[in-house]
Amino acid sequence: MPAREEGVKLELTLGIDGGGTQTRAVLVDSSGAIVGRARAGSGNFQAVGLQGVEALVDELMTRLGVEAAKGSGPPLVSACLALAGAGRTSEQEEVANRLLDNQLANHIYVVSDARAALEGAHAGAEGIVVIAGTGSMVLGKNAAGAEVRAGGWGPTLGDEGSGYWLVLQAIRSVLRQLDGWGPPTALKGELGPALELEDWHQVVAGVYGGRLDRRRIAAAAPCVFASARQGDEEALRIVREGARSLGCQAGAVAFHLGMTDVVDVAGAGGLFEQADLFWGALEEGMLTRVGQVCRRAPILSPVMGALILAHRGAGREWSPDWIASLAEADAEEA
Amino acid sequence: MPAREEGVKLELTLGIDGGGTQTRAVLVDSSGAIVGRARAGSGNFQAVGLQGVEALVDELMTRLGVEAAKGSGPPLVSACLALAGAGRTSEQEEVANRLLDNQLANHIYVVSDARAALEGAHAGAEGIVVIAGTGSMVLGKNAAGAEVRAGGWGPTLGDEGSGYWLVLQAIRSVLRQLDGWGPPTALKGELGPALELEDWHQVVAGVYGGRLDRRRIAAAAPCVFASARQGDEEALRIVREGARSLGCQAGAVAFHLGMTDVVDVAGAGGLFEQADLFWGALEEGMLTRVGQVCRRAPILSPVMGALILAHRGAGREWSPDWIASLAEADAEEA
Repeated sequence: MPAREEGVKLELTLGIDGGGTQTRAVLVDSSGAIVGRARAGSGNFQAVGLQGVEALVDELMTRLGVEAAKGSGPPLVSACLALAGAGRTSEQEEVANRLLDNQLANHIYVVSDARAALEGAHAGAEGIVVIAGTGSMVLGKNAAGAEVRAGGWGPTLGDEGSGYWLVLQAIRSVLRQLDGWGPPTALKGELGPALELEDWHQVVAGVYGGRLDRRRIAAAAPCVFASARQGDEEALRIVREGARSLGCQAGAVAFHLGMTDVVDVAGAGGLFEQADLFWGALEEGMLTRVGQVCRRAPILSPVMGALILAHRGAGREWSPDWIASLAEADAEEA
Repeated sequence: MPAREEGVKLELTLGIDGGGTQTRAVLVDSSGAIVGRARAGSGNFQAVGLQGVEALVDELMTRLGVEAAKGSGPPLVSACLALAGAGRTSEQEEVANRLLDNQLANHIYVVSDARAALEGAHAGAEGIVVIAGTGSMVLGKNAAGAEVRAGGWGPTLGDEGSGYWLVLQAIRSVLRQLDGWGPPTALKGELGPALELEDWHQVVAGVYGGRLDRRRIAAAAPCVFASARQGDEEALRIVREGARSLGCQAGAVAFHLGMTDVVDVAGAGGLFEQADLFWGALEEGMLTRVGQVCRRAPILSPVMGALILAHRGAGREWSPDWIASLAEADAEEA
């Protein structure tokens, strides 16, 4: 924890990644050395609201041992909050203004969680990140700093290749089979227990009654992968269609960023734990617009991505050594 | 209106078709002659509930001039209520028991609106009805009276080929185009004004904020047909995919009913106003399971279907002449 000596400003920079279930924070000093890490509950802006974000930041600051010395101005030079559910500029401005009023930092940046994932994945450099968890989207940045997104239109209008999307397609596939017009699939046997259905027809009451909400449905995605691994044609078709859609989105992002030669792509989100099943079709989708796909694991976690944004916002440079030390800290935490 | 002479039982039979926006009722005497018709508001069980259905029936009975003579028992021999949103047996029993308690009729049948559409479409005889309005489903009945359904899994899990489904696919197609990975389509220009979007990105707030609810989205279906008529490839693909899915469902229903030779199929619901665009792919889907498709317009409206169910429940026979007179009454009302 940073010992704040009287009269000495440590020039602290804070990165926060607010996810749906957990929020992570990392604090560095002006040399870039990590002086604190902390965790707290959900940082989804839609779920916790403005007051919830304020309380979350207070909690994290206390855990990090950072307090505002009376009359000495904001305790931080710069802070970046990456919040799930805060994709709109108006929402981001609302949070930033409130935290500026609260004198949290001299510079405050509020971005989407996807943005932090992008910065983390390529350690602040150009590239594309494909995010596939409960929802999905693609975000990219070129060397000039221009950003382009695709997908991420939510569960009703988009989210191709997300956990929710995959399981919904799988349920529809089972229903088509029950109705007698879909191809055979073993998905029913896998999904029934995962969705806690005693009788398959309960899926209707579950979905429309709210028990099987978006998160609950997405959580059954491993079943779809398991069926695909066992060679189930429908499961394979669904996984490939989802991955290919994400690849097409990534190809479109690359194209719009003028990145048509070799493109660095990282996958983020829970579904990439099944990366071996995902990448083939994803690359196929990308290669319709891109010369060569350079696939890689994210260099840094999203919270480190938020930290990079805060660090850059404070006008600081960074070195490969610094990135290496952040990656080491990620590995310790994992 | 039936003058109820003292001591004389007219043995009235009532059919009711409760739709989402309007409810229709038809009353016949023991000879099958129509003695009254009436209309009232929504009869969707999910929307109006049990008390709403009771109030609706009271209102219709008053308009039909039917009152229970004190101590003389139920005024009707038989009544059939076909209610939208009352697809489950438990819901149907709840309504039937309440109306039996209220001494509405000696026999009371509560069925789904789809069931009345099927009975009406084929005037009580065997056949299949494909329903495509805001939602969609397929229902069939064979000569032995066995019934089979397919589809109708609702907006999240099914409803292929419905108005909601068609427009949702069209919106997704526009979003893919905006993201730069979908084929070109003129759908954006058609849908924007229909959904009252000043800026296309408002579609997200509209859908997730609730302004663009299921009914509102489905109401834009004519745009998709208009684009298809103008030769827009994406619109044509969407219409064909929806119609083919409905055809596959109808084929599966026919197969399960043992009707694999010549099958009578009627289309019901608003989307069949664009029948010329629908039938080709629909028949194609059916012909994967059926020898020959005999397409026809519904013989009778759903309210007449409900009347047939009430009439049959009272143990009455019916003649082709009677069906002709009901069809004539339908034509007058249209």
